[in-house]
Order: sequence, then structure tokens, then C-alpha cells
Amino acid sequence: MQRPSDYQSFNQRLQGCATLIERRLDEWLTAPEKGEAVPGRLNEAMRYAVLGGGKRLRPFLVLESARLCCLPDEAALNVGAALECIHCYSLVHDDLPAMDDDDLRRGRPTVHKAFDEATAILAGDALLTLAFEILADPETHPDPGVRSALSLELARSAGRAGMAGGQMLDFRAPGANLSETEILRLQSMKTGSLICFACEAGAILACAETARRNALVAYGGALGLAFQLADDLLDAEGDAALVGKAVAKDHGAGKATLVSLIGADAARTRLSQLEAQACDALAPFGDAAATLIAAAHFVANRKH
Amino acid sequence: MQRPSDYQSFNQRLQGCATLIERRLDEWLTAPEKGEAVPGRLNEAMRYAVLGGGKRLRPFLVLESARLCCLPDEAALNVGAALECIHCYSLVHDDLPAMDDDDLRRGRPTVHKAFDEATAILAGDALLTLAFEILADPETHPDPGVRSALSLELARSAGRAGMAGGQMLDFRAPGANLSETEILRLQSMKTGSLICFACEAGAILACAETARRNALVAYGGALGLAFQLADDLLDAEGDAALVGKAVAKDHGAGKATLVSLIGADAARTRLSQLEAQACDALAPFGDAAATLIAAAHFVANRKH
Repeated sequence: MQRPSDYQSFNQRLQGCATLIERRLDEWLTAPEKGEAVPGRLNEAMRYAVLGGGKRLRPFLVLESARLCCLPDEAALNVGAALECIHCYSLVHDDLPAMDDDDLRRGRPTVHKAFDEATAILAGDALLTLAFEILADPETHPDPGVRSALSLELARSAGRAGMAGGQMLDFRAPGANLSETEILRLQSMKTGSLICFACEAGAILACAETARRNALVAYGGALGLAFQLADDLLDAEGDAALVGKAVAKDHGAGKATLVSLIGADAARTRLSQLEAQACDALAPFGDAAATLIAAAHFVANRKH
Repeated sequence: MQRPSDYQSFNQRLQGCATLIERRLDEWLTAPEKGEAVPGRLNEAMRYAVLGGGKRLRPFLVLESARLCCLPDEAALNVGAALECIHCYSLVHDDLPAMDDDDLRRGRPTVHKAFDEATAILAGDALLTLAFEILADPETHPDPGVRSALSLELARSAGRAGMAGGQMLDFRAPGANLSETEILRLQSMKTGSLICFACEAGAILACAETARRNALVAYGGALGLAFQLADDLLDAEGDAALVGKAVAKDHGAGKATLVSLIGADAARTRLSQLEAQACDALAPFGDAAATLIAAAHFVANRKH
């Protein structure tokens, strides 16, 4: 059972991380001076896509998993920023007319609406590329072996067998009558893989022992599935004003979700199980894991 | 003056490299077995975008620059394959309706025509991500410092201040009345930066001394500008059947090229100067640079 004080301190910590990450992203995307290399409009679109919104859950998980492995926030900020670049690029491309065709994101016009489609495609490409520039930067970690391991894992998590592959399955899913196994595979690729990377990244940064790294991966795996299930429940039952984007959209598009397959009640039971599973995985860390345990509670019970 | 025998051996070498690279790309994109992680349609679109065509000039430059620094082809193949993934992703996204809206590429339907737009966007994203997966793979180089340096340089060359930034400038160029300086900046970002990376990559892989690395960078810089100038001349005067894509397209779209600004004759003179500049840069390598010198001649005089 979650104590209210843990939950309160979790919220403070989540907001504190969001501020740190926002600042770091702003530094990476500082508007170019006249004559500098990045075209102004591209930089503007990248900033629009990345700054000024979002809970920054993935960077928070990077910072918290690093902290569990005894690393200060400062040592994990670049990895958090890189991961957020990947997450935000995927939203920009996902919102395009040829994909989900969304006009609204976090209560604001999507990038292709605020700019144009070509700019949205290029801003997404440039953010994806920037993520790997950040990871390869010597300031991200002094040991190139760590930087290379982070690049390898992020590329695998974000690519054809991870997030991009999951988006492909999702795009092809309407009318495909997916089984529960197939839906779980889709979701663990589309959403789970980046969340899992976020949790593993702290262990990689800290060169943590295998047992600790595996514990964080197990936590991230359950958390990722819980996140997507909560998202599906919000889509089926949520309030557009709170969620900040069009709801009932997946259901309307006939997209395969566990909620449509097993019903909302069974989905809520499953969500509680996943939350418990995520928390159990953190047993090796003892009380130090309180914030990540509160994070699992937050993910499973969020209303937006 | 180029001797015929050098040119002949250059052609054999270019074709030999293309075969090696095709094979390596095929290995990275082997069709997934049933139950494996990469969605079949995504893998198919990635293979369609990457395999079965193209001169593989960029990977050739990687292999040749590595060879000049005494590394065998095998040691450079992964970097060549990664670079080709970047090049091909940029073509897939560039051909999209919201960008250049091209139906034909290398004489075949473009990816969004052969598949669909969403698949083309995702296949491009997945190829871009795969490039960094390949560079971070321990098989690419045993020293993670080298892998990390390659990732950093490729990300800078392909990203907001390199290729993607150049595409953004190009997209915004019609009607913008760019000056010669602005056109050169656009072209050195859009086309030059990847070609320059290709030439530098061999030196990075071989941990070559600074003077040799700088010589290859200078060669790559001149070669990249020559490549784009030759492309513009082909676009203005070429034969669609030979070029394998729609010609007179840039001119028709009012895109800024040096050819439209200074005229074809002056452009041809400039092209000869760039070829000479590229060759001069290779002086430190002596006779060993014969193939790269032939490559400069090929780039400046190609008919398709």
C-alpha cells in the first residue's frame, strides 16, 4: 500500500526532474545565432516539439534508475534528454496525416499543424538524429564503452524491433483481429521498449552489477505494459480536456487494445497485477526504491 | 590527367565495393523468420529502400578512405552499410508527397508508392535508427572510443546542422533568391556533409594521424560540392532514361542551384576546379590515392 507521503514526494520529484530535463533540452536546442548552422525554422520546430510540455516520465525513469545505482541527476540528464528527443520525434511522426492524423497534442496544435508537414518530417528526423549525437557526446559519460552501450540499447529499443516496429504493427492492426498475445507484443514494442530502456539506462550509466540491471529491466517491462494499459483505459473512458488530446480515437479507429478485447474491468485487474509485478521486481533495492514504486502507482492510476 | 587504366580499375573497384555493401546490408536486413521481432512489412519496405540499386558511392568512399589508412574492406563494411542506411532513409523521406513528391527513384516506384506513406515514414525512421545500431555494435570496431566517435560524427553530419538541416533549407529555397554563398551552404549541408563523413570515416576507423584525417576531410569537402554541382548539371541537361528519375524537376520547381545562378558553362568550370581541389588534397597519400582521384574524376564527369 502506497503511503500518501511517498506519493507526495514522488510528485515533487517528478516535477523537479521535468524542470531539470526541460533546461537540458533547452540547452541542446538553443536557438541558433544568425549565421550558425541550424536553419532557424527547423530549430524552432524541434523546440516546439520538445519543449514546454509533457510529464517527462521517461527521463524521470532514467534519473531515478541512475539514482538507485548511486548516480547523481547531473550524470543522467543527457541520457534523459536524448530519450525525450526519441519520444518526441515519435509523437511528431505519429501525428502526421499519413499516420494517426492528429491535430492536437498536449492541448496545442501538432507540429505539422503549427508548421507544415515537410517541417514536421524533418524536425522528427533531426530529433531522432540528435538523440544519438547526445549519447555519443563525451560529456554524456567519460567512458566510451558506456556511451556505445547506451547507443546500442537505445537504437534497439527505438528501431525496427522496438518502437518503430510497434508503430508499424499498430498501423496495420485495425481490422486485423489481433489475439491477446499479439496485442501484448505490439504494446511492448511500441510503448514498452522505450520505458524499459529508460529504466535500464541508469544501470548502464552506473555500470551496475547484472542483478541490479536485470531488476530494473524487469521493473521497466511491467511498467511499460501498465503504462499502455492505463493509456487504453483513458482512451476508452477518459475526458478529452484532462487527457489533452482526442480520446476514444483508438476505439473509433478500430485499433486493437486489450480493453476492447477483455473489457475495462478485467483490464483494471490486469493493471493492478502489473503494478504489483513492477514493484516486486525492485525488491533487491529495498527502501531506496520508494520513488520508483510510487511511479508505478502513478502510472497505473493516472487520470491524464 | 586521368589514365584510362586508372579509370577502368576504379570502375571495377566501385562495382566490387557495391557488391560487398549489398551483401552486408542484406545480412543486416535479413527477412525475419515467423515469430521474430521485426514486422514483415516494415522489413520488406526497409529492404526495398536499401537493396538492389545505387552506385553505393558513399560506402565506396568509406572503404577507400579506410584502405588509404591501411585497413582492409572487411573492417569498414559496417560503417559503409550504416552510412548507406542514412542515405537511403533520406531518399525515402525526401520522396514523400509532403516533401519532393517523387514517384520514381532509380527507375522504380518510390517506397510510399510501392507500399504506403505511413510505411515509408516508419521505414525511413527505422533505417535512420539502424544506422546507429550498426555503428554501436561491437563488431563494427573493437574500440568503443572509435564506435562512439563514428556515431558522433555521423549524427552531426546527418542531423540539424548537416543533411536534415540542408533539406530544410532546400525545401524553403524556392522563390527565396538565394545568393551563391547561401546555395553553397545549403549544398554543403544537404549533400556534402555525408560525403565528407564517408571520407573521414576511414581515418576514424584506422585511428589515423590528424594530417591524414584532415586531408581526407578536405578531399571529401571538395568532392561533396562537386557531386552536387554535377547533379544540378544533370538535372538541368540530363536524360531521364539515363538518370533514372524525373529530371528538370529542381529547375521546374524554381529550386536554387548554382547552375541556374551562374549558368552551365561557369558551373562546368567550377566543377573542374573542385575536382582539382579534391585531388590536390590527397597529395600526402601519393600514388596510393589513385582510386580516390579516379573517384573525383567520376563524380565530376558522371552522366547519371
